[in-house]
Amino acid sequence: MAHHQFTPSSYHNTLGWHEPVLEVDPGDTISTTTADARGRDAAGEQVADRGNPQTGPFAVRGAEPGDCLAVTFDRLRPSRELGWTSRRIADNVLDPGYERAAALEGTADWEVDAEAGTVRLRSPKGPLTALELPLDPMVGCFGVAPPGHQAIATSTSSVHGGNMDYRGFRQGVKVYLPVSAPGGLFSLGDGHAVQGDGEIAGTGVEISFEVTFTLDLIKDWAIGWPRAEDANWFMTVGNARPLDQCVQHATTEMVAWLIDDMGLDEQTTHLMMGQCVEYDVGNIFDPAYTMVCKVPRAVVEALRP
Amino acid sequence: MAHHQFTPSSYHNTLGWHEPVLEVDPGDTISTTTADARGRDAAGEQVADRGNPQTGPFAVRGAEPGDCLAVTFDRLRPSRELGWTSRRIADNVLDPGYERAAALEGTADWEVDAEAGTVRLRSPKGPLTALELPLDPMVGCFGVAPPGHQAIATSTSSVHGGNMDYRGFRQGVKVYLPVSAPGGLFSLGDGHAVQGDGEIAGTGVEISFEVTFTLDLIKDWAIGWPRAEDANWFMTVGNARPLDQCVQHATTEMVAWLIDDMGLDEQTTHLMMGQCVEYDVGNIFDPAYTMVCKVPRAVVEALRP
Amino acid sequence: MAHHQFTPSSYHNTLGWHEPVLEVDPGDTISTTTADARGRDAAGEQVADRGNPQTGPFAVRGAEPGDCLAVTFDRLRPSRELGWTSRRIADNVLDPGYERAAALEGTADWEVDAEAGTVRLRSPKGPLTALELPLDPMVGCFGVAPPGHQAIATSTSSVHGGNMDYRGFRQGVKVYLPVSAPGGLFSLGDGHAVQGDGEIAGTGVEISFEVTFTLDLIKDWAIGWPRAEDANWFMTVGNARPLDQCVQHATTEMVAWLIDDMGLDEQTTHLMMGQCVEYDVGNIFDPAYTMVCKVPRAVVEALRP
Amino acid sequence: MAHHQFTPSSYHNTLGWHEPVLEVDPGDTISTTTADARGRDAAGEQVADRGNPQTGPFAVRGAEPGDCLAVTFDRLRPSRELGWTSRRIADNVLDPGYERAAALEGTADWEVDAEAGTVRLRSPKGPLTALELPLDPMVGCFGVAPPGHQAIATSTSSVHGGNMDYRGFRQGVKVYLPVSAPGGLFSLGDGHAVQGDGEIAGTGVEISFEVTFTLDLIKDWAIGWPRAEDANWFMTVGNARPLDQCVQHATTEMVAWLIDDMGLDEQTTHLMMGQCVEYDVGNIFDPAYTMVCKVPRAVVEALRP
Repeated sequence: MAHHQFTPSSYHNTLGWHEPVLEVDPGDTISTTTADARGRDAAGEQVADRGNPQTGPFAVRGAEPGDCLAVTFDRLRPSRELGWTSRRIADNVLDPGYERAAALEGTADWEVDAEAGTVRLRSPKGPLTALELPLDPMVGCFGVAPPGHQAIATSTSSVHGGNMDYRGFRQGVKVYLPVSAPGGLFSLGDGHAVQGDGEIAGTGVEISFEVTFTLDLIKDWAIGWPRAEDANWFMTVGNARPLDQCVQHATTEMVAWLIDDMGLDEQTTHLMMGQCVEYDVGNIFDPAYTMVCKVPRAVVEALRP
Repeated sequence: MAHHQFTPSSYHNTLGWHEPVLEVDPGDTISTTTADARGRDAAGEQVADRGNPQTGPFAVRGAEPGDCLAVTFDRLRPSRELGWTSRRIADNVLDPGYERAAALEGTADWEVDAEAGTVRLRSPKGPLTALELPLDPMVGCFGVAPPGHQAIATSTSSVHGGNMDYRGFRQGVKVYLPVSAPGGLFSLGDGHAVQGDGEIAGTGVEISFEVTFTLDLIKDWAIGWPRAEDANWFMTVGNARPLDQCVQHATTEMVAWLIDDMGLDEQTTHLMMGQCVEYDVGNIFDPAYTMVCKVPRAVVEALRP
Repeated sequence: MAHHQFTPSSYHNTLGWHEPVLEVDPGDTISTTTADARGRDAAGEQVADRGNPQTGPFAVRGAEPGDCLAVTFDRLRPSRELGWTSRRIADNVLDPGYERAAALEGTADWEVDAEAGTVRLRSPKGPLTALELPLDPMVGCFGVAPPGHQAIATSTSSVHGGNMDYRGFRQGVKVYLPVSAPGGLFSLGDGHAVQGDGEIAGTGVEISFEVTFTLDLIKDWAIGWPRAEDANWFMTVGNARPLDQCVQHATTEMVAWLIDDMGLDEQTTHLMMGQCVEYDVGNIFDPAYTMVCKVPRAVVEALRP
Repeated sequence: MAHHQFTPSSYHNTLGWHEPVLEVDPGDTISTTTADARGRDAAGEQVADRGNPQTGPFAVRGAEPGDCLAVTFDRLRPSRELGWTSRRIADNVLDPGYERAAALEGTADWEVDAEAGTVRLRSPKGPLTALELPLDPMVGCFGVAPPGHQAIATSTSSVHGGNMDYRGFRQGVKVYLPVSAPGGLFSLGDGHAVQGDGEIAGTGVEISFEVTFTLDLIKDWAIGWPRAEDANWFMTVGNARPLDQCVQHATTEMVAWLIDDMGLDEQTTHLMMGQCVEYDVGNIFDPAYTMVCKVPRAVVEALRP
C-alpha cells in the first residue's frame, strides 16, 4: 500500500487511452495537485489548457476490461485563496426567452479560507460581501478511459465518468468506475470549493486543489455506470440528456446493484426504492447532464440477506 | 380567525371551477378529512371515485384573479393503520427495455403507526417485514382552480398545483398558489404516509388523512408557479415534462421571487443561486413531472436589503 | 345523411363537456364558419375571446365512451383576404441564449387569395413582397370532449385532440378521435391558410374559415390517440413533451392500429415500419408538442391479409 | 480534379484524429468501398470490427480549423445482393412498458436488386415476401475529426457529423462539415439500401457500398453544425437529445446560414421560416438523435438580395 507523491508536468483535456503518468498497485494512495478549470495552479500560473485539464492518467496494475476501479477521495483541499465563478445562471436552466436586466458577464472572485472553512464572495472592488458559504470541496471532473478507444472531452460525461459536477463527490466518498482500457487510466481535475446543485451557473467556485486519493481494483466486476458510497448512502450515476434519461440510467443501475451484488430480492428492491429513493441533480449545464440515485445505507443493510 | 370543522360528502376528480363546499375568511383554519388515492376513507369504505379525489373546494372570501392564496398545512395525520403502495418501479423511470424477472403486479400493504411514527411493510401473508421507514406524512395532490375555466384531472399538475407528489409538502410548510377563479377554490387529497423522491413506484404509502390547514389571502400578488416556504427553505415548483423544463420553470420563478419580492439585486441573485441552489424531484411518474428549486432561508435573509 | 348549415353564435376556449350547439346523425355533414385564433370572423369583427375559440361542440347521436368519432374535412377555405402571423421564431425552438438582433415584435399581414391559391406576405407599409407560398388550408385546433369531465384549454392538446397545429390536417383528411363524453362533442377552430412544420413562429397564417365536414361514428372502437388517413398515408398522432414522447405515443398507436385493426402480424409490422415509417412535426410550440407517425397506405394494403 | 480509386485495408470505429489513408486536393473525387455496419464487405467477408467501421480518413490539402469541408455523394450503390435489418422497433421509440407478443430477436434478410431498384424482405425460410420498397441508398455514418483531439465512437454523432442515420444523405446531396483537424479527415461507412425516418428499428437495410464522392474545401467558413443542400432544399442538422434540442441546434444553424451567408435580413428569415420550414427525423435510436431543418431552395432564391 504505497503512498505516492506525484507532481504533474502535463495535462489532458480529454479522458482517453493516454500514456499513464504513473503506474500503481491496487490499494496504493496518491497525493498530487490539480489545476483549476481554466488551467491555473496554486500560484495562479497557467500550467494547462482551459477546459478541465486532468492530472493523470494513473494506471492500476492488473486492471483489465470488465474490472472495476474504485477511487476514494481521502483528502480534497483548495490550494489557494482565490476561487472564481461565472456571474450568471445559464440560459438553459431558465425559461426560453427569459431576459436578464443586466449582462452579468465575466467572472466573480470568491475568497476561500480553508482553515475557517468558508467561501465568501468579493465585490468587484474587492471587499468581502455578506454572501458566505461553508467550504465543501468536490471534484468536478474525473474518470477512466472510455470504451472503444474513444477520447472524450472533459467538458462532458458518460459511462466512464467525466465532467459530472456533482457536489456529492466530496472528501470521504468512494466511487466505482468501469474499466475499459488496460490499467483503467484514472485522472482528475476541476476542483470546486463549493457548488450548488446542477452547477447552474456553469461553474462551482473554481480553484486548484491538493488531492489525496486511493485506487482499488475489484476484478471481474462489470458495472454499467459510476457507482459510489459514503457513510449514509449508496449512489448510482446517470449521465445523459434530458434529466429524465439520467434518472433512467441511474435507477436501473441501482436496481442492478441491489439485486445482483447486494442480494436483495427483486420485489423488496422495488418496494424499498419506491418509498426510500432520493435523487440529486449533479449538473444541468454540461453537454451531458447528471442525476444521482441514492438509497439509504441503513435501510439496505437491514434488508441484506 | 375561525376554525371550521368540515365533513366531506362529495369529492371531485378534477381541479376546476366547481361550486365551493365552504366559504371562509382569509386566515381561517379548516379541519377535515381526505380519502386515499383510490377513494377509500378512514374506515376503508369507498366514498369517492378512484384517482386522487379531492376534498373541497374551499372558497376564500375576497380572493380574485391576480391574488395569491396561501395554504399552511398545520397538521397532517394518517387516519387509519393500513396504507398501500404499488409493487414496482414504473417503466418510465427505468431504461427502455428493462425487464423485470417477475411481474410484481398488484399492491402491497404497509402498517402505519402514527403514535410510533413508523411505516412498515407487511409481507403478502401479513407479518411485518424488516422494511421500516419513519412516518413523514405529505399531501400528494392539492391546488386551486386552474386559469381559463379549465377542469384538469387530479392525475396531473400545472401552474395551479395538482398532483405534484412532492414529499416536501409536509406538515408545517406554507404553499402559495395563484388565484384564477373567484374564491381561489382550494381543494386537497391523496395523502401519503411516506414517499420517496419522484414517486417512482407511482404511489407513496397511500392512506386517508385527517388534515388541518389555514388559508390566507395575499391581495394583488400574481405568481407564476406554486411557491412554498418552511423553516429552512424557500421553494418554487415547476410542473411539466421533461424534468429539464420543470427546472426551467422553477428556477425562473425563484429568480423572480428573490428579485421582485425579496429585493435582492439581479447580480447577487445569480451569484448566490449558482452556488446555493438545491433541487428536489417531486415526481417523475405523473403526466406532468415536478421539480422543486430551493434556496436556504438563512442565506437569503442575510442578503435582503 | 343530412347536410346542416350552422351559424355559430357562441364559442368556447376549452374543449370540454359543454352543451352541444347541434346534434346530428352519424354520417351527417355540417357547413359552418370558424373565427381566427384571436376571435375575429370573416368581416374582421371580434366575435369570440382570443385563444383558438371553437365552433361547436357538435354532438353525434349514439356516440358513447369507447366509440370512435371520425371527422372528414370536406372543404376548408379561408373566408377573408387578410391573414396574420407572428414576426419571429419562438424562443423554445432556438438555442438557449440565442439573441435576435431586432425585436421582431407584433404581427405581419399576409394576403390570402383563395382563387389564385396563394398566400403572400405584405410589407409593413402594405405592398406585397416576394415571399409567396401556395395556399394549403389546415385546421389548427379541433377535437372532442376529453376524458374524466375535464375542460382543457384550446392552447394545448392531448388524447382528445386539441391544438395539434399539424399541417397534414388539411382538406380531404379523415381523422379519428376517441369518444369520452356522450355525443363525442366535436368542435373546431384556429384555421391556417398555410403553416410550416412545427408552427415554429407560434402561428400559421391565421385566418377565419368556411368549413364543411362530415361526422361519422364507429361503435366500440376504442383508440388511444388521434388517428388519420388520406389518399397516401395512415397517420397516428402523439401529443406530449418532449418530442421523443410524442414519437413514443404515435408509434405505439400505429403498431396497435396495424396489428389489432388491420390484421398485420407483429413481425411484419415491426419489419415494415422500421424501413417505411415517416414522421412529421406537428407543432413544437404549444404546451404539448405534436408528432405524427405515418406509414404508406400502398405498402400496408399490399401486406393486409 | 483527380479521380482516385482507393481500396481500404483498414477501418476505424471512431471518428478521430487518425492518420489519413490518402491525401487529396480540394475538388478531387474518390471512388472506394465501405463495409456494412457489422464489418462485412461485398463478398460477405468480415474485414472490419462491428459498429459502423469507417473507410478513411481522407485528408484534404490545405484544410485547417475554421474551414469547411464539403462532400458530394456522387454515386452510392450497394455492392452485394443481401442486406439485413433488425427484426423489431427499438424500445425507446415505443411507450415505456410496451410489451411485444413475440421476442422478434435476430436479424432479417432483404434482397437488394440494384438494377431493378428494389429492396425486398425475405421470409426466414428464404422466399421473397410482399414487402418490397424502392431502393434509396444513403450513408448512415460519415464525418470529420471532432474538435479538441477527441475520438468519438461511430455509434453516435455531434457537430463533426457521425452516425446521423438520415435518409436524406443520399446520392446527389452535398454536405458541409466543420474542419477541426488539419486536413479535415473525412471518413464514411454504414451504408443503407433504404431506411425509414428515425432508424426506429436500429438499422436501415444494412449493406456494403461502392461509393464515389467529391471533397471540396471552403476556406474560412466556420459552421456550427453539418449543413447540406440538394436540388430542392437547404438543410441543417442538429445531433443531440432529446429531439427538442436537435430542433434547436438545426433551426439556429439555419437562421445563421440564411442571414450570415445568404444575405437575407433577419425579419424576412423569421417570417419565411415560420411558414416554410420542414423537419425530418434523422434518427431517434442512436446515443445522439438527429433532426434536420429544411427550407425550400426556390423560396430562398426568390428572397436573396
